[in-house]
Amino acid sequence: MKPLIATAASLLALASAPVYAEETITITPAGSQPSNKGPDQYFTGSVRVDPLFPATPPSRMSGGLVTFEPGARAAWHTHPVGQVLIVTAGVGRVQQWGGPVQEIRPGDVVRIPPGVKHWHGAAPTTAMTHVALQETVDGRNVDWLEKVSNEQYGK
Amino acid sequence: MKPLIATAASLLALASAPVYAEETITITPAGSQPSNKGPDQYFTGSVRVDPLFPATPPSRMSGGLVTFEPGARAAWHTHPVGQVLIVTAGVGRVQQWGGPVQEIRPGDVVRIPPGVKHWHGAAPTTAMTHVALQETVDGRNVDWLEKVSNEQYGK
Repeated sequence: MKPLIATAASLLALASAPVYAEETITITPAGSQPSNKGPDQYFTGSVRVDPLFPATPPSRMSGGLVTFEPGARAAWHTHPVGQVLIVTAGVGRVQQWGGPVQEIRPGDVVRIPPGVKHWHGAAPTTAMTHVALQETVDGRNVDWLEKVSNEQYGK
Repeated sequence: MKPLIATAASLLALASAPVYAEETITITPAGSQPSNKGPDQYFTGSVRVDPLFPATPPSRMSGGLVTFEPGARAAWHTHPVGQVLIVTAGVGRVQQWGGPVQEIRPGDVVRIPPGVKHWHGAAPTTAMTHVALQETVDGRNVDWLEKVSNEQYGK
């Protein structure tokens, strides 16, 4: 019986120990990931997205650095688990549906709760860059809606 | 029967719609959260932790800005869901248990997988600042171990 007991114990140990694809620290050097243009269907004006890191299970977090030229902004959208923005440069704007347009500046941290319809972007005459952090659940981290009109933007 | 059916349908709708404590975007302005000293039990040398945002369920992410003076470093530690570092200034070092000490520079993104024993800190004669992002599961986002000796640090 001993071999069988040992096997059962080994299987139990395997079942309880989490197994991860990665076991080594990875360093993604600055300059190794090409900048992307923010697609016209989701953004108004000129927007650059510099990838930082994708969601790698069991982690749900992904991050990117987003730069909005003056007057540029994302379309209205929601995030299933919310989003956090860390403003790194310039002056920007954020608004949730039904609320006021709010100004954001470097060092400000913006938390957008799950499911809250909102947009963010640059000020009309000043660019803005932020780190954008969100979590992927069921393969999704954003749901895009209609674009932000000039009237809504406050131009 | 109609009222009862309506009630059952309402209960079902309530059960399937997630309910969140927050429903409003919050902006935490730069300068509104005091800097903290990295505690001596977890750090060697002078380390400053500037809080960015706490984990707010259902989000598991929290973030801080950590500045290591020259020669300063974290103790060996692990994270249950891993960690991502975005280097924002200076020159630093990262090492996983059994691996080489690696240099990190501004714009580099470091991913530390779950359960991997590691440390990070400044270069011996140059300070380093990084955004540190991690996820809380079962109330925990880090497990601290022993300090990094001068020999391990490579001084």
